[in-house]
Amino acid sequence: MNMLTKEFTIGAEIKSLVRDLFPICRSLTGNGVRETLRIISETLPLNLVEIPSGTKVFDWEIPNEWNIEDAYIKNSKGVRIVDFKKNNLHVVGYSTPIDKRMPLAELEKNLHSIAEQPDAIPYVTSYYNKNWGFCLTHNDREKLQEDDYHVVIKSTLEPGSLTYAETFIPGESDQEILLSSYVCHPSMANNELSGPSVLAYIGKWLLEKKRRYSYRIILIPETIGSITYISKNFEQLKKNTIAGFNLSCIGDERHYSNIETRYGETLSDRVVKNLFKYDFKNNTTYSFLERGSDERQFCSPGVDLPIVGLCRSKYNTYPEYHTSLDNLDLVTAAGLSGGYQLVKESITSIEKNYTYKVNNLCEPQLGKRGLYPNISQKGHYGTVNAMMNFLAYADGTNDLISISDRIGVPMHELFPIVQKMYDNGLISTIETC
Amino acid sequence: MNMLTKEFTIGAEIKSLVRDLFPICRSLTGNGVRETLRIISETLPLNLVEIPSGTKVFDWEIPNEWNIEDAYIKNSKGVRIVDFKKNNLHVVGYSTPIDKRMPLAELEKNLHSIAEQPDAIPYVTSYYNKNWGFCLTHNDREKLQEDDYHVVIKSTLEPGSLTYAETFIPGESDQEILLSSYVCHPSMANNELSGPSVLAYIGKWLLEKKRRYSYRIILIPETIGSITYISKNFEQLKKNTIAGFNLSCIGDERHYSNIETRYGETLSDRVVKNLFKYDFKNNTTYSFLERGSDERQFCSPGVDLPIVGLCRSKYNTYPEYHTSLDNLDLVTAAGLSGGYQLVKESITSIEKNYTYKVNNLCEPQLGKRGLYPNISQKGHYGTVNAMMNFLAYADGTNDLISISDRIGVPMHELFPIVQKMYDNGLISTIETC
Amino acid sequence: MNMLTKEFTIGAEIKSLVRDLFPICRSLTGNGVRETLRIISETLPLNLVEIPSGTKVFDWEIPNEWNIEDAYIKNSKGVRIVDFKKNNLHVVGYSTPIDKRMPLAELEKNLHSIAEQPDAIPYVTSYYNKNWGFCLTHNDREKLQEDDYHVVIKSTLEPGSLTYAETFIPGESDQEILLSSYVCHPSMANNELSGPSVLAYIGKWLLEKKRRYSYRIILIPETIGSITYISKNFEQLKKNTIAGFNLSCIGDERHYSNIETRYGETLSDRVVKNLFKYDFKNNTTYSFLERGSDERQFCSPGVDLPIVGLCRSKYNTYPEYHTSLDNLDLVTAAGLSGGYQLVKESITSIEKNYTYKVNNLCEPQLGKRGLYPNISQKGHYGTVNAMMNFLAYADGTNDLISISDRIGVPMHELFPIVQKMYDNGLISTIETC
Repeated sequence: MNMLTKEFTIGAEIKSLVRDLFPICRSLTGNGVRETLRIISETLPLNLVEIPSGTKVFDWEIPNEWNIEDAYIKNSKGVRIVDFKKNNLHVVGYSTPIDKRMPLAELEKNLHSIAEQPDAIPYVTSYYNKNWGFCLTHNDREKLQEDDYHVVIKSTLEPGSLTYAETFIPGESDQEILLSSYVCHPSMANNELSGPSVLAYIGKWLLEKKRRYSYRIILIPETIGSITYISKNFEQLKKNTIAGFNLSCIGDERHYSNIETRYGETLSDRVVKNLFKYDFKNNTTYSFLERGSDERQFCSPGVDLPIVGLCRSKYNTYPEYHTSLDNLDLVTAAGLSGGYQLVKESITSIEKNYTYKVNNLCEPQLGKRGLYPNISQKGHYGTVNAMMNFLAYADGTNDLISISDRIGVPMHELFPIVQKMYDNGLISTIETC
Repeated sequence: MNMLTKEFTIGAEIKSLVRDLFPICRSLTGNGVRETLRIISETLPLNLVEIPSGTKVFDWEIPNEWNIEDAYIKNSKGVRIVDFKKNNLHVVGYSTPIDKRMPLAELEKNLHSIAEQPDAIPYVTSYYNKNWGFCLTHNDREKLQEDDYHVVIKSTLEPGSLTYAETFIPGESDQEILLSSYVCHPSMANNELSGPSVLAYIGKWLLEKKRRYSYRIILIPETIGSITYISKNFEQLKKNTIAGFNLSCIGDERHYSNIETRYGETLSDRVVKNLFKYDFKNNTTYSFLERGSDERQFCSPGVDLPIVGLCRSKYNTYPEYHTSLDNLDLVTAAGLSGGYQLVKESITSIEKNYTYKVNNLCEPQLGKRGLYPNISQKGHYGTVNAMMNFLAYADGTNDLISISDRIGVPMHELFPIVQKMYDNGLISTIETC
Repeated sequence: MNMLTKEFTIGAEIKSLVRDLFPICRSLTGNGVRETLRIISETLPLNLVEIPSGTKVFDWEIPNEWNIEDAYIKNSKGVRIVDFKKNNLHVVGYSTPIDKRMPLAELEKNLHSIAEQPDAIPYVTSYYNKNWGFCLTHNDREKLQEDDYHVVIKSTLEPGSLTYAETFIPGESDQEILLSSYVCHPSMANNELSGPSVLAYIGKWLLEKKRRYSYRIILIPETIGSITYISKNFEQLKKNTIAGFNLSCIGDERHYSNIETRYGETLSDRVVKNLFKYDFKNNTTYSFLERGSDERQFCSPGVDLPIVGLCRSKYNTYPEYHTSLDNLDLVTAAGLSGGYQLVKESITSIEKNYTYKVNNLCEPQLGKRGLYPNISQKGHYGTVNAMMNFLAYADGTNDLISISDRIGVPMHELFPIVQKMYDNGLISTIETC
């Protein structure tokens, strides 16, 4: 199987997982999350953790568990004009139960639509304020006439638990790389089935490879989930985490993006910016001021984990975001494959990132090792430039990312060169981090 | 009284003081300085200090005191063709007495005019070299014909003293902010009645407000005055001064300017550049290489007080500078009000500048405190951005100026946000400086 | 003799030395190097050092000594169609001896020419791989027809020694400036007779002047010579070298260039960039990534001597480079004079570079010392700006190069100002480095 075929295959496999997960109604808590994690665990074994409602996590508290069976608005003729069974975005997330008749004017107070995107059902939640509501396309909303509407939401909002999953994949070192994505969004494909689906396959790949570092993969509800996870694992995370990535909206074909840590200078920042310099060229680096996903918590003052956000088109920047248009057309096998490659290359670059030091003073004689053209003539120097420039900065103060940045040669081009130098006894490594 | 009216009123009040001071003939020393300080002390109480002629101050020596009663050039018909009583700029500052008849050729050696500004009387001094001279418009000079001129200067240059004023306004902290301007220029309005007049009203405002820091306001003759003041108060100034501003040419309407300290990185530099970024937008920052007023002494090597120069149009950059055209038309109520606001905002920003640290790990739950919209929908995040971004950088290493610079929100917009965060127990302060 | 005449004269003298050295066939080793150094020592006394073949120097080994008596290709009519006696570039450097008849097809394998420069004989060497070859113009090569060619190279490649020269010129301080160039190229004028020729005259100038620092001048074969020299003198070089320059291609009229050290921040880097800012304005600064001469060894990790490469047109950037077109037309008296001035000014600037500190607090009174115009009038300040700005940054943290960079005044304009300040007791020096 050649590289291109393999890349296509992995994209198609991830897309298939996205497709399987798409119909499930997820929220911060509830059975939709559990079903989602169960399906993912068929690809990547996961440990499910349940945190009871009411548990304090830093400044927050685990909310009641929300489950929903059915929801609709019937007109006076008994026709379901808005139906949760057709699209779970129709119900505001965490809606309290209701069974009531009301005129249009009263109903309107609890309806949500987007005038500028009249064909899109918006995604709306009300996690921390008891409320109910329905979302619909603006076109459908405009058709509503005065009538006696029957509004039904068969939901429960009761003490239960918040569910998340984690898996720990040990490596040679105790030092860890944290990989995170979230499972709290209902039927939207990029935000957010792309993240957990790509992560499942990254986990599968990690399990099969030799690992220098250990990996901690978590699938959590956004915000409350990361706060909960950090709260429960703070010391461990602070002690061992040397890098990490939060995956979100990583399945469309348009673009590559990263969201920097607070000061943009961690190992994770550096490796992604290096990859963006040479590869994944259609990209944007967003500062922490543009954050919006769980990097908000991972990078908050005092937590300060070196976690960078990775996206294809960043959340909140593409028109389909948080609407029913974020669907299985937007997220493609090619798009998911690109997202997967970005994560994989970031990890590979960190795994192969060492600080090197030359073993000799002055340039080594490459010729006697067969590493240099033996005839010297004008114009013949280009071929060994990368090798010589790598050695010039292998002074024990620069890691490979720095050298790559400085000498203008991508990491993946340096890997075989470095290996050759190492095998020839020309350089030694100093463990980074 | 609304804000606009108040601003206009303060400008008009300052202009009135400028008008009262304008006719007085000031110089480095002498009764003109004393009369000027007496009038200012009706607005802001001042302590007058007299330093005897001959006193050594660092590399300098207090010069003799200069006073002048009258001066003129009469033609052979007995007409005063140049008359000190009409404009005190007609006499070179520190002119020695003379009473002598002479032909035009001899007179010409001691005349000063500006060919490029034929309507302007130039401002000329000869402080440290015994000399006499007259200044006149180039137009008038060109009309002079061969004649027997009678030249009279009734001045005295004798041991006396150098006069300056200071006032100390204590605050909660011993740490001081130094405010300085100078009173050695005769009848010119921007350079320099604008500075001491604005400073009088700043002092008045400071006396009426709650003060975190202490304030030291000085009104001195330029150069020799600041050298004298530093020489007499060196240890005190070095120990307590955390910021300060030297005011000059702060009454026209054209522009805002600051002159950086030697390396441009003190608290005073930072606060002014922050204000220039968001407000007072028609501005120029001049490096220390463009200095010309008492920042030359305050920032000299080893003195190194954190004093920034504040101007509207910087001295030496506007055409009326150091001529009779720098008059009561150039300096306006609106111009003075703008200068006053710049100084007031600079002080306010320093008073409210603390280094903050969040009290919790991870983002706080703003919703339960009524600080966050409870319904989450696409597009609704903008309103709390400043709040969240402030918290993101409240990590104990950034003061409010740094945070404002970084997150793109003016200080005055942050003040109420910070207060709200503080009142809700979300942040603590670490005293700066 | 005025300055211009003197400059022309020095250029003509250097050109004369280049002309004398031009015909000699030099290589890494051999009698051509010895003869070259003997001729140079008539201008600058030199100590010759011989290092036996087989000696280990870091990762390298001194090669056998190569000497050549004659070489040619004769056609079947006995005509020398390629003749070493006409141009020593015709033979590949370090060619092994041969005396053999062969057809064109076999001969072609050992011929070198440049299709894009059909009139140029290329310069080719094969130092570390036993081989033989001839170089010729592409035009001549295209004329070759099928024939029975007689190929003769009367060379020897036998144990002997590598020859280099050094001279040590002591100064008041043990701290040294290293000056290096190389003598391993056959008949080419810019690369590389310009370097050793300019250096000979720099050495002569140094011998005649008062010297703050000591100077170590070395003339070596490139690469193996610098590796050898560093290997033999490592501790001494590391202990005392505060700056230095490697001269190469310093005799054409087109341009000035420097090649930075690895991080571009040493004293040598700073002084050259300062000179390039104000003088020698037609210049390019190349990063260490563009290196190619002995700065490769001097600046290698762990060696890290502060040696900057100085060129007129940098090697490998001008069309005549490493061909017979790099001849006595390319290198001119004016070009050599410019190269000489660049080295001389770099040295002068380092010799006069001190860190200064003012002796007084606040500005000194320049007037009483006759250093300031005594009449103060608008526009009269310009003349003392450089003086005042120098004093403003003479705070004990900036050396003169830094001050020159910062205040926008060339070093050579500052020298007399600094001297005046020093003579007036206004400043003290703190020894740099």
